[in-house]
Amino acid sequence: MRLATVRDDNGTTAAAVAGTDQLALLDAPDVGTLLQRPDWQASASTASGLSLPLEGAEFAPVVPQPGKMICLGHNFRSHLEEMGRPLPEYPTMFAKTWTALIGARDQIQLPTNSDQVDWEAELGVVIGRTVGPGVCDTAGAIAGYTVVNDISVRDWQNRTTQWFQGKNFDHTTPIGPWLVTADEITDPASLRIRCEVDGELVQDSNTSDFIFDPEVVIGYVSSFMTLQPGDVLSLGTPGGVGAARRPPIFLRAGQVVRTTIDGIGELVNRCGAPV
Amino acid sequence: MRLATVRDDNGTTAAAVAGTDQLALLDAPDVGTLLQRPDWQASASTASGLSLPLEGAEFAPVVPQPGKMICLGHNFRSHLEEMGRPLPEYPTMFAKTWTALIGARDQIQLPTNSDQVDWEAELGVVIGRTVGPGVCDTAGAIAGYTVVNDISVRDWQNRTTQWFQGKNFDHTTPIGPWLVTADEITDPASLRIRCEVDGELVQDSNTSDFIFDPEVVIGYVSSFMTLQPGDVLSLGTPGGVGAARRPPIFLRAGQVVRTTIDGIGELVNRCGAPV
Repeated sequence: MRLATVRDDNGTTAAAVAGTDQLALLDAPDVGTLLQRPDWQASASTASGLSLPLEGAEFAPVVPQPGKMICLGHNFRSHLEEMGRPLPEYPTMFAKTWTALIGARDQIQLPTNSDQVDWEAELGVVIGRTVGPGVCDTAGAIAGYTVVNDISVRDWQNRTTQWFQGKNFDHTTPIGPWLVTADEITDPASLRIRCEVDGELVQDSNTSDFIFDPEVVIGYVSSFMTLQPGDVLSLGTPGGVGAARRPPIFLRAGQVVRTTIDGIGELVNRCGAPV
Repeated sequence: MRLATVRDDNGTTAAAVAGTDQLALLDAPDVGTLLQRPDWQASASTASGLSLPLEGAEFAPVVPQPGKMICLGHNFRSHLEEMGRPLPEYPTMFAKTWTALIGARDQIQLPTNSDQVDWEAELGVVIGRTVGPGVCDTAGAIAGYTVVNDISVRDWQNRTTQWFQGKNFDHTTPIGPWLVTADEITDPASLRIRCEVDGELVQDSNTSDFIFDPEVVIGYVSSFMTLQPGDVLSLGTPGGVGAARRPPIFLRAGQVVRTTIDGIGELVNRCGAPV
């Protein structure tokens, strides 16, 4: 099953992809809210009868307001190698807040106060069942997978030791277009992941290069904090970011960023002139 | 005006301190929800008529589920001096998520997987009006102030370059007991701030030692991301933390942590045996 959050002038609605070209509307305002129902899988299978064409649908962030969004850094061997760092013993984590999120076809809003905006193609993992200290079923906690581009403002990211500010610029981070439920993905650690900028392939890796795979990450995080339905984990990016090139290259207004994970989905986002 | 979120078996309710010994119940489930009303100040002045004694009231986190909680590190001159660091050009920021929050008299839940739990008395700033890129009234964005103890699990905090994991253990971080509205605080950067552990004074400073004061921090953060009503900023801790002592000292089960900011409020939290 593929679940999306679609948007019109009146707000957002959760939807399930039906057949090859339709979206069946669900009785929930968004996928995050849907996942908070213990019977979300049954709810999602019981569409309201209303549908709209997939073609031309406007995607909101698949989970528009995650209670928590936890991102990993340093989780691909190749990315660490290009950054010249040793393999870590523990996952590196930071938080993204929902004001940074945009839909799968929305414009990446380039800021007026930086010209060092960089790409980071990532696998997103969406939680479907509460898991925390003392709860053991970490695999069963995964509702499904999505695509994230953890757009990063490098100069701000490196202003201090903590990356938060460079990771939380308004309207920068696409997530979607849909959540592919976990039952459809045999192995989340064997998916090709790519990023193209204006048609040029800038990242091309496979989640088999993960240092910490989704189940290990959820086990680690849930050993100290509770994860809840609709929370999102973003599993880090492979080699090929702009900041690691010599000389570095960054996104410019008008460029189109295409982020693809085979079997999961594709984000296509134009960079907008500073507003 | 002082606003609290009180808790009983049926959930939480926003309340306003009335006179010296009563809490007037308000028509909102918590202070965070109340602040999302543009007329929250008028709403808070119009109590429902129900009240309960202040004595014995059970405090929930004053904002139980902030949309964002952004904490500062390295924001007191004295704390930087004890850590041996130079004064920074920019604020250092990281996020705390709401599953870490506890009420003003709740037990600090000591984890089973660390014995390096440390105190950090901090001034909390609660947002009352949306402010983001292009919005200039940063002072008017502050609803009021509260007390936070940014309890930190030092070994986990230092496992990687990013502090997130050491700052987000479940049920560790008291916030409250109330929000004191901004009109009652002449200068948030001239308040005595203290932490006691079992009656021993371990931190004793003044927010005049801030490197970045609340208005400057809000101006900085809102230059790249939107802050919304109910969002919380925690302004960093002064010198005196346990990790900086030689040898380091950490919290043990049964100890009582008292966190006080003159004119704002006091947290009193016993450390609970690992559960």
